[in-house]
Amino acid sequence: MAEQKSNLVTEVLKGTSQVFFMENAVTGILFFAAIAYASYASDAWATTIGAVVGVVVATLTARLLDCDEASTASGLFGFNGVLVGVALPTFIADSPQLWVYVVIGAAVSTVITAAFSATLTGRWGIPGSTGPFVLTGWLMVAGAYSFGGLHVTGSAPKLPTDYLQGLASIPRPAELVQIFFRNIGQVFLLGSEISGAIILLGIFIASVRAGLATVAGSLIAMVVAIGMGADPTAVSQGLYGFSPVLTALAVGVIFLKTSPKVIAYAALATVATVFVQAALDVMVAPVGIPSFTAPYVLTMYLFIAPKKLMAPHPHKPVADHMVGNAHAEPASSPSTAAS
Amino acid sequence: MAEQKSNLVTEVLKGTSQVFFMENAVTGILFFAAIAYASYASDAWATTIGAVVGVVVATLTARLLDCDEASTASGLFGFNGVLVGVALPTFIADSPQLWVYVVIGAAVSTVITAAFSATLTGRWGIPGSTGPFVLTGWLMVAGAYSFGGLHVTGSAPKLPTDYLQGLASIPRPAELVQIFFRNIGQVFLLGSEISGAIILLGIFIASVRAGLATVAGSLIAMVVAIGMGADPTAVSQGLYGFSPVLTALAVGVIFLKTSPKVIAYAALATVATVFVQAALDVMVAPVGIPSFTAPYVLTMYLFIAPKKLMAPHPHKPVADHMVGNAHAEPASSPSTAAS
Amino acid sequence: MAEQKSNLVTEVLKGTSQVFFMENAVTGILFFAAIAYASYASDAWATTIGAVVGVVVATLTARLLDCDEASTASGLFGFNGVLVGVALPTFIADSPQLWVYVVIGAAVSTVITAAFSATLTGRWGIPGSTGPFVLTGWLMVAGAYSFGGLHVTGSAPKLPTDYLQGLASIPRPAELVQIFFRNIGQVFLLGSEISGAIILLGIFIASVRAGLATVAGSLIAMVVAIGMGADPTAVSQGLYGFSPVLTALAVGVIFLKTSPKVIAYAALATVATVFVQAALDVMVAPVGIPSFTAPYVLTMYLFIAPKKLMAPHPHKPVADHMVGNAHAEPASSPSTAAS
Repeated sequence: MAEQKSNLVTEVLKGTSQVFFMENAVTGILFFAAIAYASYASDAWATTIGAVVGVVVATLTARLLDCDEASTASGLFGFNGVLVGVALPTFIADSPQLWVYVVIGAAVSTVITAAFSATLTGRWGIPGSTGPFVLTGWLMVAGAYSFGGLHVTGSAPKLPTDYLQGLASIPRPAELVQIFFRNIGQVFLLGSEISGAIILLGIFIASVRAGLATVAGSLIAMVVAIGMGADPTAVSQGLYGFSPVLTALAVGVIFLKTSPKVIAYAALATVATVFVQAALDVMVAPVGIPSFTAPYVLTMYLFIAPKKLMAPHPHKPVADHMVGNAHAEPASSPSTAAS
Repeated sequence: MAEQKSNLVTEVLKGTSQVFFMENAVTGILFFAAIAYASYASDAWATTIGAVVGVVVATLTARLLDCDEASTASGLFGFNGVLVGVALPTFIADSPQLWVYVVIGAAVSTVITAAFSATLTGRWGIPGSTGPFVLTGWLMVAGAYSFGGLHVTGSAPKLPTDYLQGLASIPRPAELVQIFFRNIGQVFLLGSEISGAIILLGIFIASVRAGLATVAGSLIAMVVAIGMGADPTAVSQGLYGFSPVLTALAVGVIFLKTSPKVIAYAALATVATVFVQAALDVMVAPVGIPSFTAPYVLTMYLFIAPKKLMAPHPHKPVADHMVGNAHAEPASSPSTAAS
Repeated sequence: MAEQKSNLVTEVLKGTSQVFFMENAVTGILFFAAIAYASYASDAWATTIGAVVGVVVATLTARLLDCDEASTASGLFGFNGVLVGVALPTFIADSPQLWVYVVIGAAVSTVITAAFSATLTGRWGIPGSTGPFVLTGWLMVAGAYSFGGLHVTGSAPKLPTDYLQGLASIPRPAELVQIFFRNIGQVFLLGSEISGAIILLGIFIASVRAGLATVAGSLIAMVVAIGMGADPTAVSQGLYGFSPVLTALAVGVIFLKTSPKVIAYAALATVATVFVQAALDVMVAPVGIPSFTAPYVLTMYLFIAPKKLMAPHPHKPVADHMVGNAHAEPASSPSTAAS
């Protein structure tokens, strides 16, 4: 019983550290400290409470559903839950229904994690990563508009024309430093540069290489976003940086073996993530939801999906089609791979 | 020839009963009675005619395309067609082009059913269910805005802010009974509580267990929708109940073997479907289309997808990536499963 | 070195011809002539320059990433790049950032092509075709609204109600001829009937059968779009024809072996593409992006996906589910296929 309890604590801390792909309880403690600091600074504790509730419920749900034990122990069923728990109170005002939402949302995030594992990962070799959080978060924030018991505060519907910007000027050096750290803090939806610094410390404690990739991702995002003329307010809050930071880390260090070629590939992915951030912000805006880490998730999926020796389907008949294709020989390598 | 004809009638009736996962011609007759009663009550017969045309065209298309014979005979290529046939005249005003739309839409629903079978079902083990109807219906109602020959009457584009509600009061007992039955009738897009009762009778005739799950789904949906403060008008029309009813049935009885654990799992899925209903209503509103059974389809896919022994991808390199990952050992179970 | 260079030219020309599924350098030259003629006629050369940059960058990226050599040589990694290169300058005003966008977009289109090949093609047997172009184009045009350095000129956000049309009258014969050729030219986003004629010539040079399918696709699209009452201005510009043309070619000639049954199947697919065109125009309009060739891509995917002997999942328990389904026998053929 005591062992069980301490295991849950460890799983919860590791689950929190897995938001940045780490499996390290100390890193998890620092991440919680970063969340709590932001709550303290803004006097809004619902996000910290939500984080705890989210990761505990998600982890317990994984246990109840007999999910893979080693994965549960290493926190792989917890990191989507902690993000759901931080995100919902960030975008929805406090109410009894909000907490129903957080609990159900965290439990469902575990089911979705298992669903992504069985399909995307199991069949296509693509890590689900924070995709389950994005899907859960989108559905629940959008759904909140339909419910009188919930009030969306952190987002508002708008059309793309509301985005038209003048060319941005380059921020002052002190602000550049703030942006650098906020780009990291916003992975946990925290606008505080202090929180970002604590998180970065937690990453370096777990892995120097991961820390360096995080730094590189934040710098690339800043240069690209400012160079393209993104909304200076959004850039300043770190909203153009958190997805690229995750992409740099995921593509450059975690899911591919670091090498000069992989570093170049990860740099392209990181630049692309800034563009995808700009796009998804516009695309989800009419329904009044934030893009969350979807820019990272989409870009990472696309950059991790390609496999060795895979060729596009040639412009020749596909094999085994239902209609009138009886004797098509399985000639092409892609068709063969598919069979 | 006579045998062929009678087969088609049986297939059409079974196809209609398959909307609720039943394979029972008597149930199909009752479902048609429910549709006809709603037409009679509202003096709008296009939906009943559409239902017949839809299921006949979809079934004949399956025969012409040499789709799997056993599946065609059991109605598995008909139930998306009958829903297309009811839905299009519900949301689009009568015109010659509407009937072109119904015929082509029903035929295409069979192709999409075959496409979902070969991919979602064949590769990921997820039943396509009414997904093909949702996709066909969305495309055709959205497309109707572009065509002068079609006039969309049953839906209108709006932004999420149009959804903000005050907290709902609890309906009177007599209205609760109406909602209970309308939640079932709306699976066929019927707002009549009498139609809902006829449909429920049809389900009980085919399977008592399925009938009980339908009852439970309707009750859960009512409690959750009212408790969250959903729009009282929509709740009263049964619009928050039809997808949860299908989820309760699909997850609790049809696609998993009923057990205490599965019942708890299905209850979570049913609650989640109410939230997804709220979300998808908002998400599709800007393009002026109804969400149809998409809340059921999405939730069911996510709850049915998880497989035994499937672990999320560990935060380690994926195997066989195109770039710079030449000698990655296929260490992790997910990667192995993918190969 | 010299050989390498000449290979690149051939690959680039073949890649351009692959937009219409051909692998023919002469056809590629004619396609470039069609693009250049439209630039000359409108005095807007950015599209022609973009086409060259796009296909060259996409092809070189395929080489740098060690993509399948035979595919690269036959132009299969180039045709999405050439379309990105034409599309971005069509919808975004000239600026230094536009050209960053074209280069990064073309490079990313190759990564996405490899991603689609490994998943859609490798696992589901569906050709990726111009799907990578559509995804890249959507993200980059939507993203442009967020960047001060980019100005979207060719599209504007609107809601479906802006689409309501009166019934169209039938165009004059001379205009019908223009529409016929513009339907073909718009595959390259060219509104010029002369360009369309040059492209058709290029197709016939490579394959008479492909040329005939192109002609049939354009005619069917015209009849259906006018008959349904589509916006006469859009019809006149060829905007209802380019996706159906590609569908007719892909389903009727390229990906299935031509036969009477396949021709009927392709005709249904071509009609459906006109409806999907109408739908996707409406669906993407709120975010201010064009539908590009998405109507073709979606319809083709759905019509090519069905496989022989594939049955829908029966309404019985799925095999190997995580929750409470321990001893489910793998009874049904779809489940077996999935395992």
